[in-house]
Amino acid sequence: MISVEEAVARIAAAFKPVEAETIAISQAHGRVLASDAVAKFDQPPFPVSAMDGYAVHGSDIDKVPKELRVIGSAPAGHPFKGRIGAGETVRIFTGGVVPEGADAIVIQEDTEARGDTVIVKEAPKPGKHIRAAGLDFRKGDILAKAGKPLTARDLSLIAAGDVAHVSVRRKPVIAYAATGDELSLPGEPRQPGGIVASSVYGLSALIEKWGAEARDLGIVPDTAEAIAELAHTKADLLVTLGGASVGEHDLVQRALGPKGFTLDFWKIAMRPGKPLIFGRVGALPLLGLPGNPVSTLVCAVLFLRPAIAAMLGTDTAAPLLSARLASELPANDSRQDYLRAKLTHASGELVVEPFAIQDSSMLSVMAAADALILRASYAPPAKAGERVEILPLDAI
Amino acid sequence: MISVEEAVARIAAAFKPVEAETIAISQAHGRVLASDAVAKFDQPPFPVSAMDGYAVHGSDIDKVPKELRVIGSAPAGHPFKGRIGAGETVRIFTGGVVPEGADAIVIQEDTEARGDTVIVKEAPKPGKHIRAAGLDFRKGDILAKAGKPLTARDLSLIAAGDVAHVSVRRKPVIAYAATGDELSLPGEPRQPGGIVASSVYGLSALIEKWGAEARDLGIVPDTAEAIAELAHTKADLLVTLGGASVGEHDLVQRALGPKGFTLDFWKIAMRPGKPLIFGRVGALPLLGLPGNPVSTLVCAVLFLRPAIAAMLGTDTAAPLLSARLASELPANDSRQDYLRAKLTHASGELVVEPFAIQDSSMLSVMAAADALILRASYAPPAKAGERVEILPLDAI
Repeated sequence: MISVEEAVARIAAAFKPVEAETIAISQAHGRVLASDAVAKFDQPPFPVSAMDGYAVHGSDIDKVPKELRVIGSAPAGHPFKGRIGAGETVRIFTGGVVPEGADAIVIQEDTEARGDTVIVKEAPKPGKHIRAAGLDFRKGDILAKAGKPLTARDLSLIAAGDVAHVSVRRKPVIAYAATGDELSLPGEPRQPGGIVASSVYGLSALIEKWGAEARDLGIVPDTAEAIAELAHTKADLLVTLGGASVGEHDLVQRALGPKGFTLDFWKIAMRPGKPLIFGRVGALPLLGLPGNPVSTLVCAVLFLRPAIAAMLGTDTAAPLLSARLASELPANDSRQDYLRAKLTHASGELVVEPFAIQDSSMLSVMAAADALILRASYAPPAKAGERVEILPLDAI
Repeated sequence: MISVEEAVARIAAAFKPVEAETIAISQAHGRVLASDAVAKFDQPPFPVSAMDGYAVHGSDIDKVPKELRVIGSAPAGHPFKGRIGAGETVRIFTGGVVPEGADAIVIQEDTEARGDTVIVKEAPKPGKHIRAAGLDFRKGDILAKAGKPLTARDLSLIAAGDVAHVSVRRKPVIAYAATGDELSLPGEPRQPGGIVASSVYGLSALIEKWGAEARDLGIVPDTAEAIAELAHTKADLLVTLGGASVGEHDLVQRALGPKGFTLDFWKIAMRPGKPLIFGRVGALPLLGLPGNPVSTLVCAVLFLRPAIAAMLGTDTAAPLLSARLASELPANDSRQDYLRAKLTHASGELVVEPFAIQDSSMLSVMAAADALILRASYAPPAKAGERVEILPLDAI
């Protein structure tokens, strides 16, 4: 048995970023940049007004009040085409291009409009209320770095930089199959004592959420022949559910052996989810998750997420946070433990409360949980109020 | 001008949940339940073993060690079909149905296998290592409540309850149009001093993220005729960008007046984003967001998100958190302020650092922000280390 940390490191090291593809920014939300998105011009391209008011030449306001002739207007996007001369001004609006000959803005509140003239009541400071060209960004600036999953705000920024298409990692294809002839789909007839396949629904949702494409290979009977067929899967990673524990006769490994299966590791010193396979069938990486639905989901969070992150070129580290324990915890045994827990914010602090029942068969507890509490192997008892490391479940 | 709180309350009150539709659970990730998802059977349906070991009748182990005849096996999903009699046992695996006649499990570590018999070395307690029928949930239990956005874990739980389809709110249709003939799309030719439309890309991504369908009506010239055409939009909500401020001559309201526009409110005492319209054109709700991209995104977070939440029947309240200020803040004026800030976790606490430059024209600052710091109108100066309310940007 190896530790969780070692298993994650081996998995992350086994994958490299997939190829890039170019897509329109309207399709790029959540996608991971394969190369930097770079601004194509200065923003703003010209000095613009930060306020509604009047564009003036400061030295022209030799005294106040001073009456100026309004020779035009400059709303955002509609520059005034002439030049301001002595005794002249242009009505300007927020975002409007500062006309030639002007070097300051008198805000509306400091003026009094009189038909085609305006009375300036406060002398402006040069440059006041003017946004310099390039204030937001300059041509050539990196708007978003390679490796960044694009947020909604990134997309607006990239668009503002006149970039219509971005180079992103294609979505890695994660094919998954649940093994076991005792399995049936929800709502379909079951054999006596049979089990409804449930892990696959959560797994598929997580794969898509993590930025990959989920490809369902369905339920595979637990015969060597059926499992051996999986060796021909076209995908970036094959995930099997079940068929990995001793009780299940280690079916996946034995069935795939004749197809060129090489094992990297098997079994991890953790709970829930000890039986976990990582290896390759020829060139096809294989991650064998435990079939118990809670273990499937916990192991997907721990091991499949970094595999996908490595394929996307993003951070493979688990986003661990520190939280205060709401209730005590007993000492842990040799296996690293991932306790299902409720996460709340209280007075600016994260507070985490482990569920009293941690039975790994209980999906109801897993669904109600917001976070997993990490308990290291042989961790001593922890008191209420102590800090523990947690892995939030919906934030990732 | 009204307060942000009053504006959100009026918007939330203006919408009711849209109709329900029935979809397969494989398509339901992130969708909002319109009615409770209810378990169709007990889980587990029968008592099952929590461990690998041997199913026995406790009273049969009158002494230890005791040799029992192994009459069959019960892996998960493959129940043993007979009954355990005196001196007999069945090999059982985690999740396997406890055979008739058995009332306890002797774990593997407490036994010694001898061909077709096994030596039991520890006397079991009745019920030990047995998961009772219905431990996870019972037939009729609510697995996920109406109004809940479905997580990956919810989907596995619902599937385990033998539920193949769920009733969810259909996605509300949010149609949006950017107004202004100074606008052009990224990468396309611009008129002199023209502006690249950028808000729409972030807005569209947010609409989809919040569970609605984004329908792009494109760029609409700022003429009364073109804007009046928007009155015929088929959608649950029409969002306009720009054309709402005094500087832009309040074009949207005037153009839609002849089409039956009724105003609920206009202008909110906030920064960024003062000019904001909410009303109706006939039966079509209209939200007029400011055109400045930072204001568009902040106002979408504050006002469009609760509108969509109301249409989905989910919580319309902003998910505010408390965080510790990394640097001081000056007193605020009359307008509620939403400062762009970096959010980090330090020693179990959220720490928030406002950007030094809060110019509302700077998308680069908005893209780099993780959170908005709320500053109430007339808030006194705040010292580093004080707690402030924040609105996380990527978590919502």
